[in-house]
Amino acid sequence: MKEFTAGVDIGGTNTKFGLVDREGTVLFQGTIRTTDYAEFEDYFKAMAEAVRNSLRTLNSDHKLVGIGIGAANGNYYTGNIERATNLKWKGVLPLAKLFTDEFHVPCILTNDANAAAVGEMIYGNARNMKDFVVITLGTGLGSGFVCNGILLNGHHGIAGELGHTSVNPTGRFCNCGKRGCLETYVSATGIKRTVYKLLADHLENSELRGISFDNLNTKMITEAAHRGDIVARAAFEYTGRILGMKLAETVVHTDPEAIFLFGGLSQAGDLIFKPTIRHMEENLMPLFRGKVKVLPSGLQNQAAPILGASSLVWDYLDKKVQLKLEMV
Amino acid sequence: MKEFTAGVDIGGTNTKFGLVDREGTVLFQGTIRTTDYAEFEDYFKAMAEAVRNSLRTLNSDHKLVGIGIGAANGNYYTGNIERATNLKWKGVLPLAKLFTDEFHVPCILTNDANAAAVGEMIYGNARNMKDFVVITLGTGLGSGFVCNGILLNGHHGIAGELGHTSVNPTGRFCNCGKRGCLETYVSATGIKRTVYKLLADHLENSELRGISFDNLNTKMITEAAHRGDIVARAAFEYTGRILGMKLAETVVHTDPEAIFLFGGLSQAGDLIFKPTIRHMEENLMPLFRGKVKVLPSGLQNQAAPILGASSLVWDYLDKKVQLKLEMV
Repeated sequence: MKEFTAGVDIGGTNTKFGLVDREGTVLFQGTIRTTDYAEFEDYFKAMAEAVRNSLRTLNSDHKLVGIGIGAANGNYYTGNIERATNLKWKGVLPLAKLFTDEFHVPCILTNDANAAAVGEMIYGNARNMKDFVVITLGTGLGSGFVCNGILLNGHHGIAGELGHTSVNPTGRFCNCGKRGCLETYVSATGIKRTVYKLLADHLENSELRGISFDNLNTKMITEAAHRGDIVARAAFEYTGRILGMKLAETVVHTDPEAIFLFGGLSQAGDLIFKPTIRHMEENLMPLFRGKVKVLPSGLQNQAAPILGASSLVWDYLDKKVQLKLEMV
Repeated sequence: MKEFTAGVDIGGTNTKFGLVDREGTVLFQGTIRTTDYAEFEDYFKAMAEAVRNSLRTLNSDHKLVGIGIGAANGNYYTGNIERATNLKWKGVLPLAKLFTDEFHVPCILTNDANAAAVGEMIYGNARNMKDFVVITLGTGLGSGFVCNGILLNGHHGIAGELGHTSVNPTGRFCNCGKRGCLETYVSATGIKRTVYKLLADHLENSELRGISFDNLNTKMITEAAHRGDIVARAAFEYTGRILGMKLAETVVHTDPEAIFLFGGLSQAGDLIFKPTIRHMEENLMPLFRGKVKVLPSGLQNQAAPILGASSLVWDYLDKKVQLKLEMV
């Protein structure tokens, strides 16, 4: 019997799902549009149907051992999505319970950045680490902490919201209601805002002057920087400076072995890693200097969110074995 | 047979030690002067002699089960004190090994704030908590984190250095070599610096104008504030504002159930707690507001450092029992 898990990544626009074995091989993957369903009940029916159909593609020597879900505002302890701002269904959505009732296997739910951290530990570049941080750089900035080999969920199940630490209390407006949060500077959206600020303040020529805010994306800024565009390069330098300064604060909290950067911005390579590392080291308490690695995630591909979600099940089953032994 | 542990708290000036039972009753306590010994070897000999003498005060139905040590720059993993700036003996001091060789019991060493956190969990106000932070407000600002019921040591054994997070990169000079670290504002020394800054900037009368920097202490500032001294009150307000702002950053990292304040400054009650809580809540990401308690430590007495150090042994023995069960 070959065991596999299902991984579900619920985004504001699309829900990606897939079937994954213990080694991280994706046996099936698919997508449904999250926005197609006005009612949460209809969304869940469609999702369950899609997963059921995917199971039929595997032959009978395969066994589903659990379902992992990554979603913004997912709470590990309750298995609910609670008041997510990126979904139109309001209130508390008891997804883990619904999936368990439907498929009769354990269902583990947490927020997408926590799923990325467990994915890094199970399949990625943190396979032999017990203390590390994953920073996901997408529309916003998410983060997941592993300490003593265990995902840090915190008392209320909402640990690791580094995107909402403060860079400047009178700075850029943030979706969370505050101002100057880290993710308003360091994220795909943050670097766009920085480009527009630089274009507003300075007179330099830049190929980015021809692109509207709505059309601008990280890839364009990266390519312009590679071609030597002075505004694009300054935007990366500024983004890395702010990320480095804030990572210096995070390091003295949990003293990780490494910090992994995941997502579009992190794929700009030296453009983002060099200023980040330089400013982190400069701002670190001397005791910590030269000790903490800043590395690219080992899961930089299309299937990463599915791998992250599916890894939650393997992590749960591994720890359950330990727990059983404790009970002997 | 009645089991007890020895707790040793190594400070720059004095080394306090004591014998403590599982309920936190201090059976013996004593002090030797850390500064009396030019050579580390002589210090250790005197310390071992003092502990040996204390053991003779208990009758033969008592059994020493371990020694716990709290010390600045103590490393949990190695059992060494490493390059402590508050001691005159330089380099690496292998204290845990020396004590184990001498007394043939386990010796657990960590930094003093981590010992305070474990003490809070074993004997204090965090007895039923699994996720909390202890902030020690002395000459500097120390901190210890417990996450998932386990002391957070980090990868290099130096987690929890919140005293060296940044308030203002061009601010007050810090012993660590940086500028604007949290402990230059929030500590017994920090509030003195704030009083002097206020006296320099403002014209208001204050009873504190008659006291030199060297003579000024937290107790004087607290008493002046209780009498309505405007400078003393402003100093507490400013200290609480900065502490609250920084605790809001810490909360989104590890999502604790509670934050405990320990040490002289925390004994000023509402003077420090009210502004700290108000500014923490104002600066928190809305998702976390109203969730995290800020409370006084339950170990506010002379024996607290000894209790903290001795608790390391009980915590170690409790977890060892769990580990043994895992191995069955």
